[in-house]
Amino acid sequence: MAVKLGLKPEFIATDWRVGADPAVIEAKLREDNAHEIKAVCVLHNETATGCLSPIVEIRKAIDRAGHPALFLVDTISSLASADYRHDEWGVDVTVGGAQKGLMLPPGMSFNALSDKALAAAKKSNLPKSFWAWDDMLTMNKIGFFPYTPATQMLHGLSAAIEMLHEEGLDNVFARHARLAEATRRAVRAWGLEILCREEKYYSPTVTAVLLPHGHNADALRELALDRFNISYGASFGPFAGKYFRIGHLGDTNDLMILGALAGTEMALTLAGVPIKKGGVQAAMDYIVEAHAGAQRAAAE
Amino acid sequence: MAVKLGLKPEFIATDWRVGADPAVIEAKLREDNAHEIKAVCVLHNETATGCLSPIVEIRKAIDRAGHPALFLVDTISSLASADYRHDEWGVDVTVGGAQKGLMLPPGMSFNALSDKALAAAKKSNLPKSFWAWDDMLTMNKIGFFPYTPATQMLHGLSAAIEMLHEEGLDNVFARHARLAEATRRAVRAWGLEILCREEKYYSPTVTAVLLPHGHNADALRELALDRFNISYGASFGPFAGKYFRIGHLGDTNDLMILGALAGTEMALTLAGVPIKKGGVQAAMDYIVEAHAGAQRAAAE
Amino acid sequence: MAVKLGLKPEFIATDWRVGADPAVIEAKLREDNAHEIKAVCVLHNETATGCLSPIVEIRKAIDRAGHPALFLVDTISSLASADYRHDEWGVDVTVGGAQKGLMLPPGMSFNALSDKALAAAKKSNLPKSFWAWDDMLTMNKIGFFPYTPATQMLHGLSAAIEMLHEEGLDNVFARHARLAEATRRAVRAWGLEILCREEKYYSPTVTAVLLPHGHNADALRELALDRFNISYGASFGPFAGKYFRIGHLGDTNDLMILGALAGTEMALTLAGVPIKKGGVQAAMDYIVEAHAGAQRAAAE
Amino acid sequence: MAVKLGLKPEFIATDWRVGADPAVIEAKLREDNAHEIKAVCVLHNETATGCLSPIVEIRKAIDRAGHPALFLVDTISSLASADYRHDEWGVDVTVGGAQKGLMLPPGMSFNALSDKALAAAKKSNLPKSFWAWDDMLTMNKIGFFPYTPATQMLHGLSAAIEMLHEEGLDNVFARHARLAEATRRAVRAWGLEILCREEKYYSPTVTAVLLPHGHNADALRELALDRFNISYGASFGPFAGKYFRIGHLGDTNDLMILGALAGTEMALTLAGVPIKKGGVQAAMDYIVEAHAGAQRAAAE
Repeated sequence: MAVKLGLKPEFIATDWRVGADPAVIEAKLREDNAHEIKAVCVLHNETATGCLSPIVEIRKAIDRAGHPALFLVDTISSLASADYRHDEWGVDVTVGGAQKGLMLPPGMSFNALSDKALAAAKKSNLPKSFWAWDDMLTMNKIGFFPYTPATQMLHGLSAAIEMLHEEGLDNVFARHARLAEATRRAVRAWGLEILCREEKYYSPTVTAVLLPHGHNADALRELALDRFNISYGASFGPFAGKYFRIGHLGDTNDLMILGALAGTEMALTLAGVPIKKGGVQAAMDYIVEAHAGAQRAAAE
Repeated sequence: MAVKLGLKPEFIATDWRVGADPAVIEAKLREDNAHEIKAVCVLHNETATGCLSPIVEIRKAIDRAGHPALFLVDTISSLASADYRHDEWGVDVTVGGAQKGLMLPPGMSFNALSDKALAAAKKSNLPKSFWAWDDMLTMNKIGFFPYTPATQMLHGLSAAIEMLHEEGLDNVFARHARLAEATRRAVRAWGLEILCREEKYYSPTVTAVLLPHGHNADALRELALDRFNISYGASFGPFAGKYFRIGHLGDTNDLMILGALAGTEMALTLAGVPIKKGGVQAAMDYIVEAHAGAQRAAAE
Repeated sequence: MAVKLGLKPEFIATDWRVGADPAVIEAKLREDNAHEIKAVCVLHNETATGCLSPIVEIRKAIDRAGHPALFLVDTISSLASADYRHDEWGVDVTVGGAQKGLMLPPGMSFNALSDKALAAAKKSNLPKSFWAWDDMLTMNKIGFFPYTPATQMLHGLSAAIEMLHEEGLDNVFARHARLAEATRRAVRAWGLEILCREEKYYSPTVTAVLLPHGHNADALRELALDRFNISYGASFGPFAGKYFRIGHLGDTNDLMILGALAGTEMALTLAGVPIKKGGVQAAMDYIVEAHAGAQRAAAE
Repeated sequence: MAVKLGLKPEFIATDWRVGADPAVIEAKLREDNAHEIKAVCVLHNETATGCLSPIVEIRKAIDRAGHPALFLVDTISSLASADYRHDEWGVDVTVGGAQKGLMLPPGMSFNALSDKALAAAKKSNLPKSFWAWDDMLTMNKIGFFPYTPATQMLHGLSAAIEMLHEEGLDNVFARHARLAEATRRAVRAWGLEILCREEKYYSPTVTAVLLPHGHNADALRELALDRFNISYGASFGPFAGKYFRIGHLGDTNDLMILGALAGTEMALTLAGVPIKKGGVQAAMDYIVEAHAGAQRAAAE
């Protein structure tokens, strides 16, 4: 988990198996009496590990430290899949992308900005390209872009937003939460470990699964792709080769994730990874219970 | 299962839980000394029940009866999903469609013809529309149709055939056989009955599942569509309301069918149908074994 | 122009350069005291010649003859391009298609029916396939088809109808009339002859152009396709090889038809057909005048 | 026409009606004894004016000046429409885009690099985003991107390149040259002025047309869009409101450009701009002659 500070970014070393730690950020800011740190940058959902960071807590930590740094949050893999509130949570710059929860092909990213972020940008004389907001805001007001935009992505975005509102954002978030919990139950039933160690950091969009010592995750990914046409996310950094990632976000429903979990259970077996059967069954039991609960609630 | 005879078709009453019976057809033809029967018409795969008819055996039955009737076979829901040989099996007219094993939207049907069928058509003075072969054959020879064809279907057909040959027809048939057997194992594990009663008639493309007495299949289908966005085939005739159909054909792979079976197991549970758990597990066990067998064979 | 009478259709020989003749039809019906003629069948717009038949006049002719024959009209190449009124004009069966004015790929046809047509169908014991209306009407009422319909065509049809209503049917018809007249002015400016001889029969959707004696229309069509990627309709019957057809219907606008006319003027020149220049200019002059008139009318 | 020098770019004021002037660039570089100028940046084809700059001559001018500046060329609106040779012409960085001659929707840009450019980038400590080549080159070698690429654009690019090679690059360039000359002949026949003043700077992809004094180009553009659904490029800078631009590039053929020219001739007339008729005729005469010439050459 990384926090960028100043022009030359400083990364706060962190435990890969949890989200960003508000206390560490607060301590770092308290040390910075000269206010050389210009911004705190956090990922809402770390795609590489499946850990969600506590944005509200980090905002409070910055405020407790009484530090003027901007608060920057990357929501690429959480936007439209988990609750997120740019204004209410006091974020200065939010970065979002189209290719995850918004269900589009890759090719578009956007920013939400606070007044504080806009004021900082106006005073800054750093060269800017993606974050050259002035031209963009001026042109957007009259319905244009300061350059040729990716028009087909804009049409797609419009359709995606319509789909999300048709389902209802609360239902979209509940669906993601259900698919994520079903996936974790499968992993536990197999007797495998989830990379994200604490429940409060669990990601609603991606679950990283650790393999037992001596088993190679890339070999498993290759076998699964070859046999079942299922493609898992790769592993990174200190855990490279040791885990694989199951994505459960965007245009995904119960049966799609159960098909994916079935493929995973079968691929693990064929790869000779020692697992217990019953992962898909555990996921189904949970999903049945979730639907039965809604059924009972509706009947009352 | 139906066999049409003459202009005013006569249906041979049959057991809905098996394929067409060659012996009954043979007997019928032997009675017809005046050769008033002009054609025997059989479905290769009965979509409504999931029973496959023994085309080769029926051909032999016609020959044993020494009857000149034409042999007509409908392959709408088996073509490109199961082995079928128009010439080698001595069929006179084969009817195929694009929207099942050929993976296209509905909108195209075609005939394969024997010389005997062509000769019969030339002598016939019945009004013809779909089966007006003369104009079609004349125009096809120079690359045209006798009317405006559904051009986009022809382009799609060309792409579909390329896909089938890329996979290899033997692999396509093996995949359908695997998905069908996995489905049947799930049904048996649930403790439910397959409509098709005898193994030799099992369909490679569709499995009809009988519900226990007192349970309504249409209510189940509605619940499954509502909760899991899965749409089963309806039930017909003497068994209307008593069974539902799982399709496993066309552009379908292991994980898609396992997702569908998971949806079925969950929908049955939510609908209060008394089943045993373990259907998806049984299907996975079978698919794993099939892949492990191929793995061992390749290693030897 | 053909009029079918009875099961074994009788074609009324006709002048290919005009529409169907109400007087001839009336005479034919008056001769038929035994009422052996069951139906009068006319093309609203003859695609092969670019002649429109006077449907209202033909209805009157049938009525004047006091003959009970059904009145059948084919509107394949006029529907949604020219005014047509099934009920108001007293037609019994109208046949329409999707691939012309409705702007879809080929693959769908439909019927509009009078009560008289429905009653006749119920009494008839002719074998029916396309015109088996009973099953269709029964199933349509509950939102279904009696067989697997071409669903993607139905979605397309829904979009096409929305487009037509967005433009407004009157505007759609005015656009077709304008493109047709612009085309005819170009043909006259070139010094060529329009196959349709009388103004009152001019087609709003297709214009057939006669070449001077000694010039082959198929050679011209081939040259135009090769050089300019423009594909004309072929010629038929007594005029085979002597004319080519310019279509101006469906999703076509002023600039598309002017591009097509430019291609035609250039292809005629390259093919050595003796024409006068100025066809495209004449078409533009007409279109400018049409728009200027609308401009003046809007300003008043 | 602009030439950027150093980090804080210096624009060389220029005549908007011609391409970049090699002599001015040479003089500027000769003055810079301290070699503070790091790069000369030129547009191959200036989309805003329809002027092509003489890249080969500018390269020679830089060499004559004996200046070590990098040579940067933007080919967004000329790539795949006009001959261009990155290596042979001694360019250090070429910038291309997908949405013009490559016929794709907007959403992709790419660079071609010389060894000198790569060496300069390695030594530079400027912040980089689009031009962060190191990561890109490393990942490209193994078939990947350093970030999530716009995959659907890559698939489109592959199809576009196939189309260009099928036509043959020489034919593609000849087609663009023909469409451009046809357009200019139309403009001259109307008695209007082309913004680009000298033949040697004529653009193969876009022609800017000056309106007579007192006529507003934006009003014309609006009228043309409203009446004929044709959208011209806008005007800029010292000539804002005084000209409009006709694009003739990418997936465009003879009849498309003639339709566009017809729309232009009609819109000019309806807008009350005093023009002579005959623009489309002049364009057709030129295109006929071009095809007749090819015909004669093939016959010899």
